[in-house]
Amino acid sequence: MQSEGAGQGWPGRVTERTLADGRPVLYFDDRATPGEVHAAPDTRALPEAPHAGEVRFDVLTGEWVTIAGHRMNRTFLPSQADCPLCPTRDPAHPSEVPDSDYDVAVFANRFPSLAPLTVGPAAEGRPATLGPPDRPAHGHCDVVVFSSDHAASVVELPAERMRTVVEAWAQRTATHSADPRVAQVFVFENRGQEIGVTLTHPHGQVYAYPFVPPRSAQLVEQARKHRRATGGDLLRDVLAAERAEGRRVVLRGEHFTAYVPRAARWPVEVHLAPHRDVPDLAALGDAERAELAVVYQELLRRVDRFHPGVEQAPYIAGWHQAPTGPDRELGRLHLQLFSLLRAPGKLKYLAGSESGMGAWINDTTPERIADRLREVAS
Amino acid sequence: MQSEGAGQGWPGRVTERTLADGRPVLYFDDRATPGEVHAAPDTRALPEAPHAGEVRFDVLTGEWVTIAGHRMNRTFLPSQADCPLCPTRDPAHPSEVPDSDYDVAVFANRFPSLAPLTVGPAAEGRPATLGPPDRPAHGHCDVVVFSSDHAASVVELPAERMRTVVEAWAQRTATHSADPRVAQVFVFENRGQEIGVTLTHPHGQVYAYPFVPPRSAQLVEQARKHRRATGGDLLRDVLAAERAEGRRVVLRGEHFTAYVPRAARWPVEVHLAPHRDVPDLAALGDAERAELAVVYQELLRRVDRFHPGVEQAPYIAGWHQAPTGPDRELGRLHLQLFSLLRAPGKLKYLAGSESGMGAWINDTTPERIADRLREVAS
Repeated sequence: MQSEGAGQGWPGRVTERTLADGRPVLYFDDRATPGEVHAAPDTRALPEAPHAGEVRFDVLTGEWVTIAGHRMNRTFLPSQADCPLCPTRDPAHPSEVPDSDYDVAVFANRFPSLAPLTVGPAAEGRPATLGPPDRPAHGHCDVVVFSSDHAASVVELPAERMRTVVEAWAQRTATHSADPRVAQVFVFENRGQEIGVTLTHPHGQVYAYPFVPPRSAQLVEQARKHRRATGGDLLRDVLAAERAEGRRVVLRGEHFTAYVPRAARWPVEVHLAPHRDVPDLAALGDAERAELAVVYQELLRRVDRFHPGVEQAPYIAGWHQAPTGPDRELGRLHLQLFSLLRAPGKLKYLAGSESGMGAWINDTTPERIADRLREVAS
Repeated sequence: MQSEGAGQGWPGRVTERTLADGRPVLYFDDRATPGEVHAAPDTRALPEAPHAGEVRFDVLTGEWVTIAGHRMNRTFLPSQADCPLCPTRDPAHPSEVPDSDYDVAVFANRFPSLAPLTVGPAAEGRPATLGPPDRPAHGHCDVVVFSSDHAASVVELPAERMRTVVEAWAQRTATHSADPRVAQVFVFENRGQEIGVTLTHPHGQVYAYPFVPPRSAQLVEQARKHRRATGGDLLRDVLAAERAEGRRVVLRGEHFTAYVPRAARWPVEVHLAPHRDVPDLAALGDAERAELAVVYQELLRRVDRFHPGVEQAPYIAGWHQAPTGPDRELGRLHLQLFSLLRAPGKLKYLAGSESGMGAWINDTTPERIADRLREVAS
């Protein structure tokens, strides 16, 4: 299956293939050059496709927890010769991407927390008075590989390539949103062994959850209260207030503004919001996608430069999008980019107050974070 | 100030003194032996007592975040000669505890996240439509030192000493609950450099927050829904359901039962609940306090033995108590004890799904955790 120019002005092409165990792999080419058909087959003898675990309702918090007992033995910091994200160039070392070259590749994770439902696991019994019953952990966990070069760095990808990554984010959001059992699509990137990243090859992820996750549920609830009280849109009004006050704004683009949130909870944290009201990445127009590719890399560069003497900072970048079902009108796209590094060699740990009570303590001020993020502009 | 036998049958004594900068230090003696008056003065020339930072309302999540920019330069893994929790035996190395010996000592943290309000910091302006205004971070951060022996281990404390620790927890809970500006008292213990513990001398902490922290707010909200729907008490009914089902129960005492929660989110997690409905540690009777001291150490020993080959597991132990003000009747005391260690040398990291979305994924099952915690009983 191929489709060309799915993203309006995007000059690229998408080719979808199937891995040996039935999982999808998609190739996003920067340009629709004749001949790049990515026809190489997956020659591995893989066991059946991964099955879902289950989600259980935590009656003490009102949150769903995913129980994925089958993930204990997943791949952990493999050598480069066995990197599952590299292209397959040596048939003796087949990877998760069968072709010998690609620009951006997307495939369903082989050790997923959430997987498309085939046969549901038996739920253990529990009195119905104590919350909804367990459900299979239906969903999708995509791996989005940003480059075929194992040693590439996200901030140094050519603009054209970063634009293709944005296209992959947007298209996978659209695809998973169309699954009626998916409630929320989360596009994110983890970097750094400090936060447990097991594969150094540059990549991001997409999780499609069968429930509205806690932070999304909070955002919707806060937006509902704000709409009732003021008639306004919470995330639009926060953006307007930050732009008007200006104290914590770190970057003003034509289509996006980045600012440190007033109650930042991480030692380095910045949000990026579109000026136009859009629910998700799939709703961005071509000019917005192009600017986003540039601005995203600029923010990552600033996070890397935040602490003098640090070359690469560990970070988490997560795209908060509107839920796909009920309350969709209360959501509004924005990026939350943060790092746990509070000084060179010193991490912010989540101990008793944060992990036990959910009460965050920030050892710096949002205004100081904003000052530094402006200071290290390119 | 001295008071004897404050905890009903407890044979000990409490002596309160003042540090050079005005912070309180309390000595909890195992027994009220004549002569132990802890009169040694604090000879240091300390700057003025620490002032509070501020708490800001995160309008995106509805949670309060503590902004404590003054904490950046706190003590980090000092050598034993400079351990601030050791007794002061060498006048050239005065610690936070002036006396040359003690059983259990409690003092207000010198680098606190929350401090008693003296002068409030100026709040930065913000449109009132976007949430409540900033507030000073009024509160209390106690350090509870379990032994004068720097190298002691909590699990090996004599029963009498552990009973004194429980007494200190209960009495500090009562003291802070009487502060009208305190909304929630949290007694907890962090262990392990893996979770950022900066002092190895055995100790715990007490935080008294000026707001109801997120997890407490969730518990209250879930208990309210459960009461409306069933007329019952959520935490009592969860305990009864776990005891009846039995599958995840790991320990049954006369006054307490320990079980792995049905939706456990950590690789090792166990809850301990009293059989009697009590709001907090201060409400426990003497027989309950005595059993608690024994059962707490037993649970910690099992967490240490959980992974073969691991000598000391990092853990967080947090006491969830009823809020001190509104909704107090919806709270019920319980301990949440968990470890981030998912295998020897492998930590559970909180990356995109957990830190970005609040969506926990557990790579094991609660039933497997319970099996192992039963297997390693003393």
